[in-house]
Order: sequence, then structure tokens, then C-alpha cells
Amino acid sequence: MILIPNSGTRKEIKAFTEDEIRNVVSLNVDFIDAIEEGFKDLSLPGIVTPPILQILLEKQEGQTCAKAGVSPRLPFYAIKVSSIFPPLKGESKSEANGLVALFDLSTGQVTALLLDNGYLTQLRTAAAGAIAAKHLAPSHVDQIGIIGGGKQAILQARAAYIARPYKRAKIWARRFDAAQAVADELSSVVEAACIPVATIAEAAAGSQIIVTATKSAKPLLNECLVDEGTHITAMGSDAPSKNELSQALLQNANIVVADSVEQSRTIGELAQFSVSAFSSLRPKVVSLTNVILKNQPGRICDNDITITDLTGLGIQDVSASCFAYQALV
Amino acid sequence: MILIPNSGTRKEIKAFTEDEIRNVVSLNVDFIDAIEEGFKDLSLPGIVTPPILQILLEKQEGQTCAKAGVSPRLPFYAIKVSSIFPPLKGESKSEANGLVALFDLSTGQVTALLLDNGYLTQLRTAAAGAIAAKHLAPSHVDQIGIIGGGKQAILQARAAYIARPYKRAKIWARRFDAAQAVADELSSVVEAACIPVATIAEAAAGSQIIVTATKSAKPLLNECLVDEGTHITAMGSDAPSKNELSQALLQNANIVVADSVEQSRTIGELAQFSVSAFSSLRPKVVSLTNVILKNQPGRICDNDITITDLTGLGIQDVSASCFAYQALV
Repeated sequence: MILIPNSGTRKEIKAFTEDEIRNVVSLNVDFIDAIEEGFKDLSLPGIVTPPILQILLEKQEGQTCAKAGVSPRLPFYAIKVSSIFPPLKGESKSEANGLVALFDLSTGQVTALLLDNGYLTQLRTAAAGAIAAKHLAPSHVDQIGIIGGGKQAILQARAAYIARPYKRAKIWARRFDAAQAVADELSSVVEAACIPVATIAEAAAGSQIIVTATKSAKPLLNECLVDEGTHITAMGSDAPSKNELSQALLQNANIVVADSVEQSRTIGELAQFSVSAFSSLRPKVVSLTNVILKNQPGRICDNDITITDLTGLGIQDVSASCFAYQALV
Repeated sequence: MILIPNSGTRKEIKAFTEDEIRNVVSLNVDFIDAIEEGFKDLSLPGIVTPPILQILLEKQEGQTCAKAGVSPRLPFYAIKVSSIFPPLKGESKSEANGLVALFDLSTGQVTALLLDNGYLTQLRTAAAGAIAAKHLAPSHVDQIGIIGGGKQAILQARAAYIARPYKRAKIWARRFDAAQAVADELSSVVEAACIPVATIAEAAAGSQIIVTATKSAKPLLNECLVDEGTHITAMGSDAPSKNELSQALLQNANIVVADSVEQSRTIGELAQFSVSAFSSLRPKVVSLTNVILKNQPGRICDNDITITDLTGLGIQDVSASCFAYQALV
């Protein structure tokens, strides 16, 4: 912790580095529960969830955004600023950058800066996958299919394991070596066979949970590949140009659960529907909050196909940041 | 400067306190020129000016927002988060809180944190007043009228003095002692008679520049109080509920210059007009950028009434922050 002096009657600002945050916060049941409480908060009066501030840097092919959330239940509120650019010269992977500013809800003072470079965002995104699986996946899961070869692919597989300890994970990525790398890393943290596969069909067949965690601009997973009774979490789409699930897959599902229906219509899987196509889908579209709170039924029978679309909410950031802050001080 | 270590290949983050920033940045010609360059940048391709992210905390009567701006001319872009709450218990005045995160435009990395508690916002707001006066006020100014008793009232009076060194300032505030305090502080920094007055009419009469710097929800300045040839800068309105100038005053003006016409329609003086009333006003509404660049004429003759409405733009924040950063390192 670095204490930064402040002027006037203001308290010092506590700054925490990514390493300090990683030392005390990881993807586990306590963290996932904190994020679930955040989703429940969306039903409270006094909740504030402003639209995302988004900066698209065309020439640099970079993206920076600010997300914010306020929960009346938590002592602090948060504004997160994060930036993702292409890899630096000489590097193969890009590094995320960014931080969370935590404000005291009673005074508006900056209490802490969590210089996490997107670590908490990765965790809270994975946690939402665990929460979706907990409430929507069939009670018994033998196998999961992971579509994607990045950090979120591994984290989503770990999150699914916490919700439903599976025996087998099949991983597909655009590059087979990336799928292999996910399988290798995953097998060191879960007690399951982790198998890279060459086709999306192989990853999907026989899986009771499928997670898509890609930057795809076109549907990767379609209605022909998905068995009855499967739960699908699509977490890749967070921009109007991204799309992982086919329209027919969403139309054939028994329920489509969005972290935010409004946001999914703008930047998530629901953005691909015309107004009229969406109006026929609408009766089976519900919010994750309402499923968690049992205001609306989720999975009704074993054969249901359930889908969750995660676009990422500021309330997750404030929940994750408050959890981290309490672990840090 | 406090250096905060970062992980991976990222550079350390430089954090600067408000006191450090105050030591090297003040309201002067160089700073004002930097802000003027920022306004010019709004005509460049590659400029990014996302809408404000706004958090309104009803129960706390507080407000927190994030503003961002990217100029292709500057090496860094900025996201500013700032918060204003009512005074703390036992305090008579409220303190602003907040900081600017500066990102490297070529890599997206967080380069610096300017923990300025709104100081740079105050300065860049005043600078816009100076720029408006420079381009729109009559060439000879004997007297200015200041409507408002806060920090911005003093800063706007100082800014006007840099653009047009006047001989006399008349200051009105809701509380006479606040007007007296502004007059006292102002007289220590400008060579002019600084006189608190009891009515808005007295502050307006005989002034060639009038600045409104209040939180008023209803018009304070109307068409009957303003002499021919006056330049008015209205900088108080930055929310749909705020309003300083009467509709008729705006309708009678020869030109209405907005820092952002779109933003002024939402949260500034232009927000009070219906669509049809605004459509008749529209031909004389121009952007400050176009006036600075002489794409559109500003004041045409000595008798013109000119009005500038300032709502505050992210490009001012990035200009101010880059200027400060270069002075700090």
C-alpha cells in the first residue's frame, strides 16, 4: 500500500498495486458470493448504473472505457477506467491497463486507488459465469465445453468448476496450441481431464455447460451443435460488432438470461436481433438478477437449453473493488 | 511525485498531489493558450469526445462524473473523475474530490495520476471564459460584472482581466458578504476597483463583460439588465436543472456561442428551449471552436450582444492535464 497525501481536510488516498491485489483476491466462493450480492443489489432503490463511457481509438486500434456503479449496501462506490490496446512492439500479447477509483459513499472522497490493470475485471467476469452456472446449469455436469483460448477461457472454466465440479473439459480455440495451453493450465487447478479439441462441435457434444469466451464477430456456436439440457454462457460480446451465438440458438433456447437486457441489446448477443425479431424473443428474456432472486424461474426441466449473456456491469466492478479493498486493509 | 510500481512490462505510474500541481500550474496566458489549442482540436479528425458519465446520488445530494477526451495532437489522453458532495459535518464549504488518469496515446498505458481534487477543472473552466472574452468581448472593456460568490466567480474575473484588463469589477452574490469576499480577493490580484453590489442590475449596468457563475435554477440575468455591446459568459449551467440567462436575453443576442452546442442543449443554457423555439434561435448559435478558428464570425459590431455558454468539455480536461503533466515532469 502506498499512502498518497491529500490536501485540505481530505484523508490520504490508499493506492494498491496489481501484485498486492493478486496476493489477496482470487476466484473463489467468497469472491463469487460478493459478486452475486452485487447482482441482487440491482433490485434495490438507490442503485446507480450509468451507461459506459467508451473511447474507441481507431488509429491505435485501442479501446478505453469507464464503468461505474453505486450500491446503497456498500460503503464505497467505484469508477473503473480500463484500456486495451494491441500488443506493444516485440510483445506477442497485449497487456490491459487501468485502475479503479473507490469513493466514500457518504462523503464523495477518493478513498483508494486499485491499480489492478484489469485483474478485478477478469475475476468479476468469471464470477458472473459461475453465478450463471450455479442458477441455470443442470445439477449434474460431467463435461464442459470451452470455446476460446484466452485468459477468460481459463477463468470461466475455473468458475464453472466451482459451480459444478465436472470431470472433463473440452477446449476449442482458433489456434490448437492456444487450446492446448488452456488445457494445460486448467488441468493444474481442477481435478478433471482437460482436452484440447479440433472443432467446436467436439467441444459442444456431450457438454452440459458450454462457455464462449472469444472476440468473434460472427456466431461460433449454433443450434445444431448444442445438446438438449445444456447451459450456455456467452461472455465474449461487449461491443456491437461482436457475436458468438447464432440467432436460432437463442430463439430455440428455453430461457435467455442477460446480466443487463438493455446492455445486451446494445453490445451483447441480443444486439443482432431486429426490433421485430426481438419482440418475439422478449417473453423468454430475463435478467440475471431476477433469476438469482427467484422472481422469475430459470431452468424448469432437465431438457431445457438455458443461455446467459454477460456484457459486464459496473455493479460487478464496485462489488469486486469493495471486496478487494476489504481484503487489502 | 510518487512513483507507483506496476507489473509486467508496464512503466511506473507517476502520481502527483494537488499541492504539487498548484505549485506549477496557475491561470496565466500559457495555460489559457493550451486550453484554446484544445478547443481548436475539436475540428481535427481523430478527436474523441465521449458523452459524460454521470452519477447522481440523490440521498447524499452528491454528484460524481467522468469526462474524457482524446486529441490526436497530444501525447496523452485523459479520463477525469470528480465528485462534489455537500459540506462535511462541521465544515461550511464543500471540498471537491477527484483525479485525472493520463493514458499514453500510443500504448494505452496509465502514465500519470493527477490527484488534483478538481483544481485543473476550475482552471480550465476559467480559461474558457478568458478565451470567450478574447474572441467576443468588445476590444475596450472598462468594467465587468460578476454574478456569483464562489471560487469560479473569482477565477472568471481573473480570466476576464487577462483577456481585457478592466478598471472596475462589480460583484453580486446572493449573500453580500460572499460578494465582499470575492471583491477582497480579486482586488489583491488585479489592478482594478473591485466593488460588491446589492443587485444584479448594478453589476450589469455599464459592464462590457458580464460573467454568471452560479448554481441558479432560474434565470438571474435578463434582457432588461444588459446594455448594448455587452459580452456575457454563462458558465454555471452544467445540469438540466440549472439556468442563468433568460430565454429573451438569448433570443435578443446577436450571437450565441456554445463550447458544445449539443451539450448546451442538454445541460446548458440552450436546454430551456423547446424544439421549435430552438429552431428559430439555431441560425445564430455557433461553436466556440468555429469562432476561434474564424470559420464563423463572432462579434461584428460594437453594439452586438454576444453570449457564450460554457458547459465544460473533456477536451479541456485533456488539454489542462497534458499542460500540467509537462510542467510537472
